[in-house]
Amino acid sequence: MASAPAKVILFGEHFVVYGEPAVVIAIDKRAYASAELREDEGIYVNSADLGASGVFTGKRFLVERGGREARAKLEPVKSAVEQVLTLSKERVGVSIEVHSTVPVAVGLGSSAAVATSTVAAVSRLLDLDLSKEQVFRLAYEAERSVHGTPSGIDPTIATYGGTMLFQRGKGFMSLEFEADLPLVVGNTGVERSTGELVASVRRRREQYPSIMGWIIKAGGKTALKAVEALKKGDLSAVGELMNINHALLSAIGVSHESLEKLVHAARDAGAYGAKLTGGGGGGCMIALAHASRLNRVVDAIELAGGSAFVANKTVEGVRIER
Amino acid sequence: MASAPAKVILFGEHFVVYGEPAVVIAIDKRAYASAELREDEGIYVNSADLGASGVFTGKRFLVERGGREARAKLEPVKSAVEQVLTLSKERVGVSIEVHSTVPVAVGLGSSAAVATSTVAAVSRLLDLDLSKEQVFRLAYEAERSVHGTPSGIDPTIATYGGTMLFQRGKGFMSLEFEADLPLVVGNTGVERSTGELVASVRRRREQYPSIMGWIIKAGGKTALKAVEALKKGDLSAVGELMNINHALLSAIGVSHESLEKLVHAARDAGAYGAKLTGGGGGGCMIALAHASRLNRVVDAIELAGGSAFVANKTVEGVRIER
Repeated sequence: MASAPAKVILFGEHFVVYGEPAVVIAIDKRAYASAELREDEGIYVNSADLGASGVFTGKRFLVERGGREARAKLEPVKSAVEQVLTLSKERVGVSIEVHSTVPVAVGLGSSAAVATSTVAAVSRLLDLDLSKEQVFRLAYEAERSVHGTPSGIDPTIATYGGTMLFQRGKGFMSLEFEADLPLVVGNTGVERSTGELVASVRRRREQYPSIMGWIIKAGGKTALKAVEALKKGDLSAVGELMNINHALLSAIGVSHESLEKLVHAARDAGAYGAKLTGGGGGGCMIALAHASRLNRVVDAIELAGGSAFVANKTVEGVRIER
Repeated sequence: MASAPAKVILFGEHFVVYGEPAVVIAIDKRAYASAELREDEGIYVNSADLGASGVFTGKRFLVERGGREARAKLEPVKSAVEQVLTLSKERVGVSIEVHSTVPVAVGLGSSAAVATSTVAAVSRLLDLDLSKEQVFRLAYEAERSVHGTPSGIDPTIATYGGTMLFQRGKGFMSLEFEADLPLVVGNTGVERSTGELVASVRRRREQYPSIMGWIIKAGGKTALKAVEALKKGDLSAVGELMNINHALLSAIGVSHESLEKLVHAARDAGAYGAKLTGGGGGGCMIALAHASRLNRVVDAIELAGGSAFVANKTVEGVRIER
């Protein structure tokens, strides 16, 4: 069994598309994958979170649970297994059980954490001694084969853990700071399509290039100022910058009433700051709060109709559990 | 009896302090002042809206209704009367009844509309034939003697009506466009101090000069783009720009949960767009909506806890009623 961390985007969603920096944090909530050898050469995948299981044999898929959507849901895990099998050149069958402790498909990197932990679990099963770089590469390829051309943010964080500054064309830079980062993640439960939101921002930018240009620059600068504040351990300033950043995301049109409700509930409950995280239009928000107020913020978010959990940064990336 | 219109700031609150343009609109809700000569030389003022009345005689004030706060509340009206008496050089007493059809002290220019209509009513009573420029000047002086150094936006709109583009250092430019401007004004009922909000924006700008600089520029540009859209009669674009502008005001820290509630309620009810108007931190918001949706937007705002009324632009400034 191996595990890898989920992530939150602290700053930079959407603005990163236009070259601004993003700050992404591995959180102490993880996805787990257990791997076992099979008698046959099939790849069996079971995901309780997705409510789906079945066996891939060559190009065929035999559904066990989850109906018509099961195959598409499980494909990324199968792809991760295949990446390792191809590298090892072994012709064996593998059974994988995956479990994520964060909600899936809400921008918390659950899918990449599952792929990364699957790569690690299968490579250990086959006695391959992969470097982290190799684990990342295989997990990234598995995601790419299913999702097109992702930025690589999610498998990078799932593999290496910690906090990363990402910028298009410049890649990743690891950020180190001592302060705890006590977060509450709130899920609106409202589904949205990140792709459509990215497209709507692009349209608004074409319509109002100078307005959007200034907003995007301001968004990028809030991320950089927040990094300075994190290094100083000034969580109050980080929170204020989160509030500014959230309003800028609202200005580019990616907030949603459900997010506003949770964000305001968290601020009212004494959070340093709160913002949407990920694509917006629903999905999740995060609040930064003093450790003594975390549960108050959780309660406020749940009273406002969301579901919430506490998370903190973690430096631990992918790891073997047993 | 004379009357003068209330106003709404369509765009530019706060950003105007930093040299960006503001778009201010006279609305078809008015303040009324009736003037009568008195036997003595006192100035009697009665305001049902303020719940205050009393007589000013020289430096003394005799309260009739409204207790200790009555004098401060009625002072601006007395000052408007005095401006006219000084100009006319007549030594007479005057009784004034004032009534505003918009809520007072929420940034809708009620105070300036009362002062302007008082100047017009008293000058007609004394058979002075003042130009609009003179009426404006006296109303402005009356406000200035009580409120310090206001921008002059409110008495300008109360005097001339219509729509004005205002920019610091450049003054006023009258904007003409054919389209109706069907607005709903929503009052949160939450009291705030515009002065404190202006000061908090200044502090945030000192702390984050480049972030705030870009946001302010973006805010100014939304006003100019909205003027283009108004001239084309494209209310849908004006609404979108109102939404962007509202988020930018939120980014500089002057929104409030009560405003967010009403703004989102209005958007959900099908408004083209909605934003706070005036100082923020409570006070009022405005929504722009197709005429057929105005009442739906009013209902939505009231269900969300605000009080609301419909308003449209008016070209009529100060006028004699009878």
